[in-house]
Order: sequence, then C-alpha cells, then structure tokens
Amino acid sequence: MDILSIVGIILAFAAVLGGNFIEGGHFSALFNLPAGLIVIGGTLGAAILHTSWPSVARACKIVLWVFSPPRQDVHETSNKILHWSMTARKEGLLGLEIIVDAENEYFAQKGLRLLVDGTEPDAIRRAMEVDLYLIESRDLKAARFFECMGGYAPTIGIIGAVMGLIHVMRNLADPSQLGAGIATAFVATIYGVGLANLLFLPIASKLKGVVQQQYQYNEMIVEGVIAIAEGENPRSIEMKLQGYLEHS
Amino acid sequence: MDILSIVGIILAFAAVLGGNFIEGGHFSALFNLPAGLIVIGGTLGAAILHTSWPSVARACKIVLWVFSPPRQDVHETSNKILHWSMTARKEGLLGLEIIVDAENEYFAQKGLRLLVDGTEPDAIRRAMEVDLYLIESRDLKAARFFECMGGYAPTIGIIGAVMGLIHVMRNLADPSQLGAGIATAFVATIYGVGLANLLFLPIASKLKGVVQQQYQYNEMIVEGVIAIAEGENPRSIEMKLQGYLEHS
Amino acid sequence: MDILSIVGIILAFAAVLGGNFIEGGHFSALFNLPAGLIVIGGTLGAAILHTSWPSVARACKIVLWVFSPPRQDVHETSNKILHWSMTARKEGLLGLEIIVDAENEYFAQKGLRLLVDGTEPDAIRRAMEVDLYLIESRDLKAARFFECMGGYAPTIGIIGAVMGLIHVMRNLADPSQLGAGIATAFVATIYGVGLANLLFLPIASKLKGVVQQQYQYNEMIVEGVIAIAEGENPRSIEMKLQGYLEHS
Amino acid sequence: MDILSIVGIILAFAAVLGGNFIEGGHFSALFNLPAGLIVIGGTLGAAILHTSWPSVARACKIVLWVFSPPRQDVHETSNKILHWSMTARKEGLLGLEIIVDAENEYFAQKGLRLLVDGTEPDAIRRAMEVDLYLIESRDLKAARFFECMGGYAPTIGIIGAVMGLIHVMRNLADPSQLGAGIATAFVATIYGVGLANLLFLPIASKLKGVVQQQYQYNEMIVEGVIAIAEGENPRSIEMKLQGYLEHS
Amino acid sequence: MDILSIVGIILAFAAVLGGNFIEGGHFSALFNLPAGLIVIGGTLGAAILHTSWPSVARACKIVLWVFSPPRQDVHETSNKILHWSMTARKEGLLGLEIIVDAENEYFAQKGLRLLVDGTEPDAIRRAMEVDLYLIESRDLKAARFFECMGGYAPTIGIIGAVMGLIHVMRNLADPSQLGAGIATAFVATIYGVGLANLLFLPIASKLKGVVQQQYQYNEMIVEGVIAIAEGENPRSIEMKLQGYLEHS
Repeated sequence: MDILSIVGIILAFAAVLGGNFIEGGHFSALFNLPAGLIVIGGTLGAAILHTSWPSVARACKIVLWVFSPPRQDVHETSNKILHWSMTARKEGLLGLEIIVDAENEYFAQKGLRLLVDGTEPDAIRRAMEVDLYLIESRDLKAARFFECMGGYAPTIGIIGAVMGLIHVMRNLADPSQLGAGIATAFVATIYGVGLANLLFLPIASKLKGVVQQQYQYNEMIVEGVIAIAEGENPRSIEMKLQGYLEHS
Repeated sequence: MDILSIVGIILAFAAVLGGNFIEGGHFSALFNLPAGLIVIGGTLGAAILHTSWPSVARACKIVLWVFSPPRQDVHETSNKILHWSMTARKEGLLGLEIIVDAENEYFAQKGLRLLVDGTEPDAIRRAMEVDLYLIESRDLKAARFFECMGGYAPTIGIIGAVMGLIHVMRNLADPSQLGAGIATAFVATIYGVGLANLLFLPIASKLKGVVQQQYQYNEMIVEGVIAIAEGENPRSIEMKLQGYLEHS
Repeated sequence: MDILSIVGIILAFAAVLGGNFIEGGHFSALFNLPAGLIVIGGTLGAAILHTSWPSVARACKIVLWVFSPPRQDVHETSNKILHWSMTARKEGLLGLEIIVDAENEYFAQKGLRLLVDGTEPDAIRRAMEVDLYLIESRDLKAARFFECMGGYAPTIGIIGAVMGLIHVMRNLADPSQLGAGIATAFVATIYGVGLANLLFLPIASKLKGVVQQQYQYNEMIVEGVIAIAEGENPRSIEMKLQGYLEHS
Repeated sequence: MDILSIVGIILAFAAVLGGNFIEGGHFSALFNLPAGLIVIGGTLGAAILHTSWPSVARACKIVLWVFSPPRQDVHETSNKILHWSMTARKEGLLGLEIIVDAENEYFAQKGLRLLVDGTEPDAIRRAMEVDLYLIESRDLKAARFFECMGGYAPTIGIIGAVMGLIHVMRNLADPSQLGAGIATAFVATIYGVGLANLLFLPIASKLKGVVQQQYQYNEMIVEGVIAIAEGENPRSIEMKLQGYLEHS
Repeated sequence: MDILSIVGIILAFAAVLGGNFIEGGHFSALFNLPAGLIVIGGTLGAAILHTSWPSVARACKIVLWVFSPPRQDVHETSNKILHWSMTARKEGLLGLEIIVDAENEYFAQKGLRLLVDGTEPDAIRRAMEVDLYLIESRDLKAARFFECMGGYAPTIGIIGAVMGLIHVMRNLADPSQLGAGIATAFVATIYGVGLANLLFLPIASKLKGVVQQQYQYNEMIVEGVIAIAEGENPRSIEMKLQGYLEHS
C-alpha cells in the first residue's frame, strides 16, 4: 500500500478546493458537465489514437500500482535464492525440481526451470535478459500513456475554454451574462491543467518509478539464478545480492 | 484494421463538439472558411518547406497505416522461416529456388535470393541491415512530417487569431460587433490547437509505433535468413524466433 | 531547383494573407514599418551576437540551397568512380593523373590527388574523414543560424507588441483610438511568429536536410576512393556504391 | 556555510518586494492565505504523488545543504590518504587497523576496513563504486524533488488564478469590486511563478552541484584506497590525488 | 576584438528602441526604476542561488570574451610547436629547457616542462587531458550562468508585471489612470524578455563558442607536445597540426 500516493492526491485536491472555498468560491462554479466531457473525452481520444492497443490495455491494469505497488520482499527473495543455491550444492540442480511448481513468481519459476533443464549459464542470461527488457519496456510504454494524457489535457482544456469564449462573445454588451459565460469557459482550463498536473503527470512518474524498482527486483533473481548455474558458492552469491538489499 | 485509431478520433471529436453543443454552442460558430484556409494552408506550406520531397510523398502514403497497418503475421512468418530452414537442410540452399518467386514480401524474397545465390552470412547481414536501416529511417522521416505539422499548426492558429483581432479592433467601441469579431478570430486558435492535438501529433506517434513494429518484423526475417545461411539446425532457429513471437 | 520549397513558401503566405483578405482584413493593416524594424532588426541583432562570424557568413551563402540545392548526380558520380577504378586497374594509380585536373568537385579532386600520390588507404581515410566532418559541422552551424533566428523572432515580436501596448495605454479611455493602437501593436506579434514559423524554422530544417544529403554524397566518393586505394576489384566497388544509389 | 545561497535568496526577495514597494504596491496586497494554500498545498501534493517515499524523506534532509553543504576538506583528506599509504608501506595493511574505528567518514571507514580485510583491489573497486553510484543517484533523485515542485508550482498557480477569476466574474459589471477580485486572483500566479523561480528551481540546481561535488570527493577517497591496495608508492598516489586538489 | 558582438548588441537595441520611437513611443515610458530593480535583482538573486560560487566568479571574468576573445594565433602557435620539435630533434628534449620560462601560455609552458622532465608520452597525455577537460568544464559552467539568467529573467519579468497589475486593479473604474498603470506594469515584461533575448541568451551562446574554440586551440598544443615526446619527425607533426589550421 503506497500511503504517500493517497496523501499526495488528497493533499493536492484538498488544498486546491479548500483554498477556493476559503476565498469564497462555490464548488458548483467548478462543476461543469460539458467542460468535463470535452476535456476527458478529448484527452482520452487523443491518447488512444496516440498509443498502440497493448499499451492502453496494460496502462489500465498497472494504474493500480500507484496505490498498491506489487509486493516485493527483497530480503525474503534473497534468502530464497540462497536456499536454492544450497539445495543445488547438496542435491545437484535436479534437487530444485520439486520447488519449481511451488514457486509462483514468473521470473523465479522460469529461472528454476532453466536451472533444472541444465541450461548453460550464458543461455540463461540471454533468455532472461530479453524477458527483463521486454517486460520493462512494455510497462514503461504503459506508464507513458498517462504522460501523454498529461500532455494533451491542458491543450484540450484550452480548446474547451476558447470554444466557451466564442459562445460567450455574443453577450459582450451585457456584462452580467458575459461574466457567467466566461466563468463557465474557464472551467475547461482548470479541468485540463488540473487533471494533467494533479493526476496524469504525477501518476506517470510514480508508475515509472515502480517499473524501475520491479526491474531491479527481477534483475536480482536473474543474477542469483545465473550465479547458481555457474556453480558459485552460497557465500559469494550472498555478497552479490547484498547490493540489491542495501538500496531496496 | 486498427479499431483503436478510429475510436480515438471519433471519441475526441465527438467529446469536443458534443461538449460544445451541450453548452449551447452552435456548430456554425465553429465553422469559418478563412480561418481554415489560414491554418491548413499555412501549416501545410510551412511543413512542405520544412521537409524534403521524398518524405512528403512517403507521408501521404503511410498515413493510411493509422487505420490499416501493414498486415504482419509473426506466427505464420516464423513458421515459414522454419519451413525454409528444413528445406535447406534436406535439399540444400538451392532447394529454396522454387520458393523465391512465390514469395511476395520484400525482405523475405531478398533474403531467399541471397541464400540461393550462396552469399556468405556476413555479406547477407550487411546487405540486409542496410536495407532495414534505410527503410526505417525513411518511414520515420515521413512520420515526422505529421509531427512537424503538429508543431506549426498552433502557432499559425495564433497568427490567424491575431490577424482576426487586428481586423476587429476597428469596432472596439461597438461591443456587439466586437464580440462577433473576436469569436471569429478565436476559431483560428481552435483549428490550430485542435488539429495539432486531436490529429497531427497522435497520428505521428501512432505511425512511429507502426514503423518500429515493422522494423522488428523484418528484423525477424533477416535473423532467420542469416541463421539458415549459417547452417543452424531448425530447432535452434525456432528458439531464436521465439523472442519475436512473445512480444508480437 | 527545389520546387517544393517555393511551393511551400507561396502556399503558406498565400493561405495566411488570402484567409485574412477573405475575412475582410486589409493588407495595409498588416503593413507596419516600425514593427518590421523592431522584429527584423532585433532578431538579426540577437542572432548575430549569438553566432560566431564564420557561421553568419556561411549562413548567408547556403541560404540559397533552400531553392537550388547543390547539384549531385549520384548515378553519374557512381559511374565516374567505377571508371576510375577500372583505369587504376589497367594503368595503375598513376593512370589517374590526367583526370585530376579535369575534376572540379572538391572531394573527387582531393581523393584523386591522394590516390596519385600513392597515399596509404588508412591515411586517405583519416585525411578525408576529417574533411567530411569539418564541412558538415561548419554547414550545420550555419543552418542553426536560422534556427536561432526562429527562436528569437517570436519573443522579440512580443517585445514589440508590449511596447506598442504601453504606447496605446494612454488612450485607454477612448475605444476608437485604443483599437487602432492595439491593432498596430499586434502586428509585431504576427511578424515575429510568422517569420519564425513560415520562414526561419522551416528553412533551418530544409538546410539541415541538404547538408546531410551532401554528407552522404561526399561519403560515397570517399568510400569509392578508399576502395580503389585498397585495390578492390570494380565489381566489388560497384556493390559498395549500390547502397548510396538506392536511397539517393 | 554557503554565503552565496543566502545572498541569492535575500537579493531576489528584496529586489522583487522592494521594487513592488517603490512602485507604490502594498505588501498586504501580496498576502493571500487561500492563494498560498492552493499553490503550496497543490504543489506539495502533486510532488508527493510524483515521487517515491525515500526520495521525499531524503529531500527534506539534504535541503539544508543549500546553506551549509557537507564539510569536505579535500587537502586534509588527501593528506590523510597519503598518511594511510605510508602507514601501509611501513607496517603492512594490518597497520591500518587502529585507524579504522577513529575514522568517521562513511567512505573512508569502509575503504579502510576493506583494506585491513585484505580484499583484492578489484573487489574493493566494485564494492565501493556501487556505493558511490547508489549514493549519488539517491541524492540526485532527492534534488529532483525540488525540480519537480518547480515544475508544478507555476501551473498550479494558474489553476488558483483561474479559479479566482471564475469567482470574480460574477461582478463583471462592477469595476471596483472586479478589480479587487482580479488582484486577489493574480496573487496565486505570483506565488506559483515566484516560488518556482526564486526558490524551487535554483535550490534543485544548487543541490545537484553539491551532490556532484560530494561524488568527486568520495571518488578521490575510493581512488586512494584502491591505489593503496595495489601497493602503489606514496609519491605516485600523491600525483593521482593532485587532479582532485586542483579543481576542489 | 569581436566586432560582430558589438554590431549585434547595437543593432538589436537600436532596432527595438528606434522602432518604438518611430511608432511614436517615448523613451521615458520604457524607463522604470522599480521594474528594473525587480527584474535585474530578482534574476541575479535566482541565478546566484542556482550557481556555485566559483562559476559566478568565473562568469564575471569571462564575460569580457564576448567583445575581446582571448587572442589565439593558430598559425603562429603551430609554427612554434614545429620549432620546438626541431629543437628537440637537434639538441634533445633538454634543449627545450631555455624556452620553458620564456613561454607564457599555460598549456605551452606546462607541456614544455613535462617534456624537459622527460615524462612518458602517456603520462603527458593523461596529465594534460585532465587539464583540458577541467578548464573546458569550468568555463562552460561559467557560460551557463548567463544561460540560467536568460531562463529566469522572463519569468521574473512576469512576476513584476503581475505585481504591477495587482497594484493597478484598484483603479479599474478609472480608465485614464488604469492605462498608465498597466503601461508601467508591462515595462517589467519588456525588461525580462528583452534582457534574456537581446543579452543573456546570445551572450551565453557566444561564450560557449569561445570556450570550444579555446579547447581546440589548447588541444592542438597538447597533441603537438605529445608528438614531440613520442619522437615523431617534424614533417609528420606538421601534417597533424594541419587539421587545426584548416578550421581555425
């Protein structure tokens, strides 16, 4: 559970809406259905045209990571790898066979299977590094979906505002109506700039951070598996995993 | 058929125009011939001066990829390459001769011909990688034509708006006429920002994605052809092509 | 003759001015000497302070390439190089001596002279690659002179507009005069944004394209000369030049 | 103590507020609680959502470096390293054992311990370079927290201003109230742009400079420790450290 | 003496002020002490907080290079190096001893001293390349001080303008006073945008150019000294220096 993300969103919206309330603004003045339709629909449309289908689908899935990033216990996993290496020492690589199916992490299971199959260390490295790279680049593309929404939202907010101003210009001679019209038009700007800066851009950045952390976590598993395949002794493997432990 | 592109465009325009309609705006207020002429003509002129002729011509051709990207069946092609490798094993490279003319993909045919000619694997790699690179860079330049239109459109929209405002300033004393004039002037801004953000920039990004996917697809064929030339066994070739299959 | 450049400029200006005319604008309203002086003089001054003298001088020279890029017949030059290689085969490198002075392209002549002098292939490569690099970077710096003018023009247009608005603010109470004043002030914005987007930036991009094409053309000559120095047979040289022919 | 940072902040705020005061502005007009709440709360919220928790915590800690950067006496440390190398020469690496615990710098102590343990020079390099890199990237991420606040503040200032303008539009017919309302709305813009440009962005840059300087300082210690492990003579170590002394 | 820099500054300011004068503007309207205080003080404060002390000090020193760049006679220096190489051939490296003290350029003297000391060519290269790099990066950081002032000035100009507008909003009902107030407020924008685009940014770019040219000049000396240390014959050294001569 990433408490910080929740605190950030609540703080941002509470401050902006609260400040407006103290100033004497009415929430109703900030609520405008057409403006919302223009900004959210337009941004979503542009971002969908911009992005390939698999990235859109993945983005919908990983957006939850903002609040609950995938659980990764680096210490526990490091101990697990050490346990594998000791099993392999005592019973040979085939001794890992009974653990393979019990394992439910993708990288751990794939690595164990390659070990049990007696694959060469170099072949393991190549196979698993391609996987590492593919998964990272797929998830970064998904995170960039929010970045691109953060790029389109403010400009589409401006489109909405200018369209509202055009509509309002008919009443230029009547200040009372003009004011209400301009106010409505401005709401689209707030939606566009607000969604981009309080949601889309920070979310994209947070997701990128999670993706990079996962990459490091999986990299640790890969390094451990390769070290076992190379027959390194458990003590030396422990030292290798140390680096990952320190900045987890 | 890239349904997502169609959905994106329809969603974006429906949201923006629908939102404006609900707000009480008239479509007629958004229709302005001179503004369209300024923004589209000016953007096209600047982009044509900006770009070299071959890239403009290519851009007109590949813009259709946004809706119907070139068909690439990675699985089928992978099987085809495996079939070649087995033919080459059984009947020698000359056994591929009868397939060459039946093949209608550029890279597949070129690769087969080089195989039948008995070209060295290194020479095949050099010849085909130059081709890969040239085709990718040609298509990326074409995709950038839309990116550059997306860059010029908003600024030319501003030129149109300011020219409209200049025209309108004569009526500064008469609010009723002033309003109508300003409204007309603002339309150019909407055209510029709208075309850039709802069409040009997302299209450029989508095309870049298609170009990169095609590069990967063709790279798979090249890798397969080289592996056959090097006399690798079909099993090992299959493993090589696996990577391309997984993230197709 | 680069017809596309002329079409681009004419299209851009015709569209922008024509659109304004249809809207009912007067050309006279867009003509303002002080605004022109501010934008053109200010932009030129900033760009001259920004750039070193040799780059400014070179920029004045190569700006003509926008309309008539240096003539480069890749096919003809490729044939010429093949002809050299056959001469060198039959009569030895000294047989090229009579062609040297007839040659009037810089790279071709320099290459032939190095061949006739019996220079080592490696020394030829080093000498000519330095030349290639120096010429390319000199011309790119010159092209960037227009890019930097395209960067300064809009901001200086804004300076002009704000100075005009300051002047106009004295008449804030008199809408009729105010309107005329604001209109005049806005002209500086149009000059700045227009010059940058319809001329300076597209020209800089077009020039960069020409410089890169020239680099490739000269690279072909260098590769050909080195291949002759290394005594490659004409057939193999022909294959090497093929790559340059295909994407010329 | 970094006097320059204090001078910079005081100069910036004195100039901006002083200039406003001379112009006849009242400080009270620049003081607005809701605007401050919107800009500071909104910026903080967005930045917290944007950044991972460890980087936020680290940012709060190292922000003090702007005024009192960590003390690093390059000359003294260089002498210390020379002293170690001479001790190691005379009494062997074990002779350093008594110094280890007296040492209170992280890198110096870690290096000494590795020396005393008789670790191979290559293993020392790997272990300490990972540390160098991890510490630098952790601190750069923390410095970027201020950069990202500097990016969000102006846009959230605009949100505050537009919300204020919406509120004010009800009084469009009454210029006296309208003026006061617009003035209040503008304060949010000043807070956003001012905080970003007078505090957040310069602080981020200053912190990055300190982080890089620390990296160099620690790199010097690492190089010295490795040279001792490789058994270089003190004279040669002195020459190696010279480079760090000259641009400290 | 860099005449071009002087021409650029005079042209830019003459054009901007002259254009304003022809338009009927009064210089007095552009002169505003508080606005100047805000923009110059605020920009300087932010830039000082942004930059480390040594870079600020260096920036104050090298700003003069904009008008009188350090004199570097590439031809003369090239001849000098050839002369050294011939002396070294005839009298041995020790023969250079009498020239060392007469030499007053930093790099030439340091190089000669290393030669006379009989330092190995590799050690000379390492020692002098570190120097080359340190001097270049120190001067580039100083040049970036102006770049960063060019970045802060326009935004602080906007702060000044908005503060002026806030002050003015009290008189919204009285157009005659309002106009004068807005005019004064706009002056801060002109100061900010003008200083950045007519002075700070072009100066930063010009200084970067000078720094790079100096790097090349000093690199030539270093290459010459190393060639002498390696005992190359004067003819071959002359050929090496040729490249520097051609694009000096």
